[in-house]
Amino acid sequence: MAAAADPQLLPQAILATKREGGAWSRAQLGALVQGGLSAAISRPQLGAALAFALCRGMSDEETVGLTEEMVNSGRRLRWPAGGGPLCDKHSTGGVGDKVSLVLAPLWASLGLRVPMISGRGLGHTGGTLDKLEAISGLRVDLNEAEAARCLDSVGCFITGQTGALAPADGLLYALRDETGTVPSIPLITASILSKKAAAGVERLVMDVKYGSGAFMRTDAEATALAESLERVGAGLGMQVRCALTPMSTPLGRTIGNALEVREAVETLAGGGDPALRALTLRLTAALDPALEAPAAAALDDGRALAAWRGMVRAQGGDPDAPLRGLDAVKQSLVRAPADGYLRRLDALPLGQAAAALGAGRAVAGAPVHPGVGLELLVVEGEALSAGQPILRVWHDEVGLEVAQSLIAQAVEIGPR
Amino acid sequence: MAAAADPQLLPQAILATKREGGAWSRAQLGALVQGGLSAAISRPQLGAALAFALCRGMSDEETVGLTEEMVNSGRRLRWPAGGGPLCDKHSTGGVGDKVSLVLAPLWASLGLRVPMISGRGLGHTGGTLDKLEAISGLRVDLNEAEAARCLDSVGCFITGQTGALAPADGLLYALRDETGTVPSIPLITASILSKKAAAGVERLVMDVKYGSGAFMRTDAEATALAESLERVGAGLGMQVRCALTPMSTPLGRTIGNALEVREAVETLAGGGDPALRALTLRLTAALDPALEAPAAAALDDGRALAAWRGMVRAQGGDPDAPLRGLDAVKQSLVRAPADGYLRRLDALPLGQAAAALGAGRAVAGAPVHPGVGLELLVVEGEALSAGQPILRVWHDEVGLEVAQSLIAQAVEIGPR
Repeated sequence: MAAAADPQLLPQAILATKREGGAWSRAQLGALVQGGLSAAISRPQLGAALAFALCRGMSDEETVGLTEEMVNSGRRLRWPAGGGPLCDKHSTGGVGDKVSLVLAPLWASLGLRVPMISGRGLGHTGGTLDKLEAISGLRVDLNEAEAARCLDSVGCFITGQTGALAPADGLLYALRDETGTVPSIPLITASILSKKAAAGVERLVMDVKYGSGAFMRTDAEATALAESLERVGAGLGMQVRCALTPMSTPLGRTIGNALEVREAVETLAGGGDPALRALTLRLTAALDPALEAPAAAALDDGRALAAWRGMVRAQGGDPDAPLRGLDAVKQSLVRAPADGYLRRLDALPLGQAAAALGAGRAVAGAPVHPGVGLELLVVEGEALSAGQPILRVWHDEVGLEVAQSLIAQAVEIGPR
Repeated sequence: MAAAADPQLLPQAILATKREGGAWSRAQLGALVQGGLSAAISRPQLGAALAFALCRGMSDEETVGLTEEMVNSGRRLRWPAGGGPLCDKHSTGGVGDKVSLVLAPLWASLGLRVPMISGRGLGHTGGTLDKLEAISGLRVDLNEAEAARCLDSVGCFITGQTGALAPADGLLYALRDETGTVPSIPLITASILSKKAAAGVERLVMDVKYGSGAFMRTDAEATALAESLERVGAGLGMQVRCALTPMSTPLGRTIGNALEVREAVETLAGGGDPALRALTLRLTAALDPALEAPAAAALDDGRALAAWRGMVRAQGGDPDAPLRGLDAVKQSLVRAPADGYLRRLDALPLGQAAAALGAGRAVAGAPVHPGVGLELLVVEGEALSAGQPILRVWHDEVGLEVAQSLIAQAVEIGPR
């Protein structure tokens, strides 16, 4: 490779540039990404490069370059021209967050195209693919041709990675986690946008969560990430719009795979939890304010639900079959121990409780139980009387004691 | 291990502490060193930890703790009580620097004990052990009992590592080189002092070189390193005194293994290059100003030379045998191309020239030629006439053209 002749592209020079507070050239970013994948740059060198990037920062121009090099490390999906704009929504992760299940068919029903590449859950946050697999027969391993057919016929799909999209992100994502460099906003930005750009997304709405249950603990951190995503998106030619949403209490009324699908369908049918519907419409307005009213109409007049049913069928599922797992589990109620107000219903321990029951996984690749989870029967601020049911636990024999202890931590009842 | 139960000792917590600008606790430093050796902390994590340490800095207290943990990672040599103070001299590396060969026997002749653990050369700087091996029969692989006998009978030895001294330094030294974190002054300090503390040294004189041929490019960098070494040494209970010496032109008149031994013996016999004798006495004064005059006397009255002969014999060598390699090589003269003044005689290309001839090695473990090298016949500032010999090249068939080209780069002749 001719590039190897340039001493600025050697690992030591790449490291020294950022160590001394300089900016990485586009060629250096390419050498970093390609060298990381080929092992021409060693793992300790990548660890140090990520740490230098966190400490010294990266400009928007560098972050755009890094993102593009990450995209170029793999396939870039191309969709047929002439359809609606290619839109997607991404969330930084929340407990009970089933918005993707609602938004993809809702936006498709408005004439947009939604090529949604999603992931599985790890830890206390559920994965959209895990939730969809509660639908009998539904496949989340579409190949590129199958995905293209769904997009053409229904306007949307939700699947796992088709082929190797941004394989450099897979490498860097794992190393960021390993080396304590996850808090770097440029590195988060490049990670998120590289996968979206590789999937051919033109317009992205980001739901940036903040609060105790979220990755970004403060409003200020969430704002900095949102602004970085919007600026770097512009540099990539992608319209990125962010909504900041608090994540201290779960979104909606359910946590768990089949339970969340059931709740999403209620919202798609014009009903469901008001907070979930409100966030759905807010994220639609973030994409385009002119779409908010049509979206509300599509939820209420059956078009959104029809698009959902079309998407489920196009991915091999049966929208009329009972959801998997719900029949096989027991239900137990958790009751208020005393009169008072529900002062707090904390997202993080509730997510951990659902995971302990089997709705989530501690280790990548482990199976999840579709039927277990939590159903919230009250919301924060409500007045309670002693003995009143506050949660329904859907469970089998696994993790019930741990879950009950976590639920007790999550609930705070006191004076108003 | 009970320590594993403390979440502050987990790799992620150790990384986060320094990433956020905090100070590593002594327990965290121990976990970092031990975890690095046991691979409980991965290589990418070590790379990131070194980069965070470079960017965020380390206090003297942290550096003392790191050094002690590195010492504790291996054996600590103990010498019999009751003899003279245990002294050593260390240099950050220079071209033609044979001061160790002079100082160890000189200081021994003054009643000090000098347990000198030295290394081999890599690149353009020669290694003291490589130089000593030009002496027929001399061994530089003394075991601890042999080293103790030398110290008792002669007052000094110069050998390679006896046993595993500070094995964590071996690991971190290689990783610092790999990850571009060598410029961190706390990490340099810990690396140098850990080996000296493990060798049982009580008083250390550091020759900190600066200039184009040295690792520290500026006086300010060299001063910062010197001050760190002195403060951290004090924290370890070791008296460290530093001398800053410029390294732009070679030290003394020779570069090459046997040639440098021959020159060191001339100085030990009261003669030799004035600059080499001056630095020898200056470093002795840094150890203790009261020793400068006695050291000059010991060079002049034969006591230093007698100690050298004793050390060579104690290590199995014959001080009267011809030095290895000198007979087997050819000599060629490099002459001044024109009248003028020798404005510059640059250390770095001359060191590289000697290495090209075979005096040094590009790869660890490769053999070196004892007899090849350069003999400088003039010094910077001297008036020259066209055709006057300025260097004698001791060579065989290897590397002569490369060496001649480097010598041409090193020499600048012009108006005064």
